[in-house]
Amino acid sequence: MIDISAIGRDLRLIKERSPLVHNITNFVVMNNTANALLAIGASPVMAHAIEEVEEMAGIASSLVLNIGTLEPRWVDAMMLAGKIALKRNIPIVFDPVGVGATSYRSEVCKQIISECKPSIIRGNASEIIALCNENVKTKGVDSTESSDSALSWAMQLAREVNAVVVISGQTDYITDGELVEMIYNGSTMMEKVTGMGCTATAVLGAFAAVNPSMFDAAIHGMAVMGIAGEIAASASKGNGSLQVNFLDELYAMDEEVLCRTFRQ
Amino acid sequence: MIDISAIGRDLRLIKERSPLVHNITNFVVMNNTANALLAIGASPVMAHAIEEVEEMAGIASSLVLNIGTLEPRWVDAMMLAGKIALKRNIPIVFDPVGVGATSYRSEVCKQIISECKPSIIRGNASEIIALCNENVKTKGVDSTESSDSALSWAMQLAREVNAVVVISGQTDYITDGELVEMIYNGSTMMEKVTGMGCTATAVLGAFAAVNPSMFDAAIHGMAVMGIAGEIAASASKGNGSLQVNFLDELYAMDEEVLCRTFRQ
Amino acid sequence: MIDISAIGRDLRLIKERSPLVHNITNFVVMNNTANALLAIGASPVMAHAIEEVEEMAGIASSLVLNIGTLEPRWVDAMMLAGKIALKRNIPIVFDPVGVGATSYRSEVCKQIISECKPSIIRGNASEIIALCNENVKTKGVDSTESSDSALSWAMQLAREVNAVVVISGQTDYITDGELVEMIYNGSTMMEKVTGMGCTATAVLGAFAAVNPSMFDAAIHGMAVMGIAGEIAASASKGNGSLQVNFLDELYAMDEEVLCRTFRQ
Repeated sequence: MIDISAIGRDLRLIKERSPLVHNITNFVVMNNTANALLAIGASPVMAHAIEEVEEMAGIASSLVLNIGTLEPRWVDAMMLAGKIALKRNIPIVFDPVGVGATSYRSEVCKQIISECKPSIIRGNASEIIALCNENVKTKGVDSTESSDSALSWAMQLAREVNAVVVISGQTDYITDGELVEMIYNGSTMMEKVTGMGCTATAVLGAFAAVNPSMFDAAIHGMAVMGIAGEIAASASKGNGSLQVNFLDELYAMDEEVLCRTFRQ
Repeated sequence: MIDISAIGRDLRLIKERSPLVHNITNFVVMNNTANALLAIGASPVMAHAIEEVEEMAGIASSLVLNIGTLEPRWVDAMMLAGKIALKRNIPIVFDPVGVGATSYRSEVCKQIISECKPSIIRGNASEIIALCNENVKTKGVDSTESSDSALSWAMQLAREVNAVVVISGQTDYITDGELVEMIYNGSTMMEKVTGMGCTATAVLGAFAAVNPSMFDAAIHGMAVMGIAGEIAASASKGNGSLQVNFLDELYAMDEEVLCRTFRQ
Repeated sequence: MIDISAIGRDLRLIKERSPLVHNITNFVVMNNTANALLAIGASPVMAHAIEEVEEMAGIASSLVLNIGTLEPRWVDAMMLAGKIALKRNIPIVFDPVGVGATSYRSEVCKQIISECKPSIIRGNASEIIALCNENVKTKGVDSTESSDSALSWAMQLAREVNAVVVISGQTDYITDGELVEMIYNGSTMMEKVTGMGCTATAVLGAFAAVNPSMFDAAIHGMAVMGIAGEIAASASKGNGSLQVNFLDELYAMDEEVLCRTFRQ
């Protein structure tokens, strides 16, 4: 049973504290993820230079790492920022975009997970399965698997790397390796907006910055994503207006909207 | 005479097969072009690291190369991906953004055309003229020439490099060096949305992935662009809403819309 | 007393001449700033390769430098382009995004100001204060200071570096070190759209390209930003629609709108 009032409290804390969320992310989604974080009241910063990531991670409340358009210098920056975040004990949320599509992505994911020890890992079903199975190949960045087929892998991964693992899809699954929660809100149209998954990861960064339980933070963040997406999709003609309406719904999200829309 | 039912068939094939379109493109347009590809049912991936482009091009159904914000490492990645695409015989669609504005752009274009042998080259009139005339200088990335003035150059280029050449503008011209087709749909307001040309190039990548005739793929892709742009512009107050409405129209595009809107 | 007809004249000149504005800017905002420049009639180009920035700055009417996602090679490119712009005596507009958050940003700002000698510097209050006080630390890229608290620092900076300094915020302040003008139009919702400040900087680049007085160009550009933002915000449910509506209002901006909306 998910506690809606606890989601509402996290939302209020984000607005009150405006946590600095440091993103080292991909070129495709930077604008959207920054706007999503602003919409819910967080303060996003994008910074990837080796010359400054340690200092930036040193003042941030959480760190979001996303390999969507990775390259060696960016990965080096992720490792540097990750080590500072780990040392400072601030949450790291990791998005293994397209893992399994190329061996470079798979290697980088292994390195980030082993050295940065992310608190939360979010991917689609194909990505979570590929994280657990080196010989599974994925097709690009879109999922070709159903979320429930990835659940047992997600639970195993969560236990092995001591992280909360999130599978996003038609139903979202959030697991700490023992417990599993599901979010039923959302819309299949969300898959047609590029970087919607990356946006979820960034939003989790904001919730992880204000809620000491990574499991609860992940549940709350995914609930807000699903609800905003569901309301926005119902008013959208296509992925263009969905991208816009989604930000507007995040901007307007509060406990009253949550109560009205959340599906247990 | 353009066959509308053949455009409709390509659209259905894109939705059915969801071809992976590998883009090595510029920072300005990545979000838009990814969303445009998702809107019509393709599966976009952006990847530019030398460490992975060969593998990514190795699983893609087409490759889109765009030099809008080029730099040497990105050009190296384009060459690597291009060679794999050529070897695998998948289509390469090339966008010579801003060629003629700097000698670096002109040199890179020459290298890409000679070594990657693109199947389709799409540019505005100024860019197509500059591709053919090294001593012609363009002003940035916006066209200062009319499309018809570039047609004879486009035909010559098509024959010389054995590619389909597309000049986009108020009227779009598509030529294989012998035949010429024109697309009359569109709106001048489209020029006010950054990266609309780059989006056309990416959309051509999706059509080229499902239609073995590069000439037909280019005609079909440009028809869909023009129709979506024309409908979207008629409902838009400015370039902000046009960018959004355009994606919605791509998302909703089907044979019925094509029949209703296409102008022979 | 700000002369509205002079703002209208600048707007008409931008539309007539379509000045090429060369931007070396950050990944988050490139799409928005390009669209904002297109909306008011300018011709944006984004180019950052060391191989071509001198040539591109050599044909541009103004240069916009923005350190939002800086890294050494981009800074090198800014210095190269800046030197050409300085030599050609075209305006340089500088945006010290997030200065004070890391020492790297502070050092780069010092270098750009001393070597490129920007004509206009625009930042939020925290950034302007941090530019003047090396020991002041800022939190990321969002301002935590009020604009009026930064005014005396802005005036001192303007005199020291011989530039027009703009503090954007609820009230915008524009100073050449002696005179101060204020723009009262705008909306606090604009802070929730990522890169709205960066967009202001880019728009100043267009005005500086057509108005020989950098003080007037800065006033006119900020007036247009504030008015477009105010009208757009009044019709927006959140930061998603504001981003879209803002571009539409820029696109529709003319002297009649200015007269109706400007608040002295």
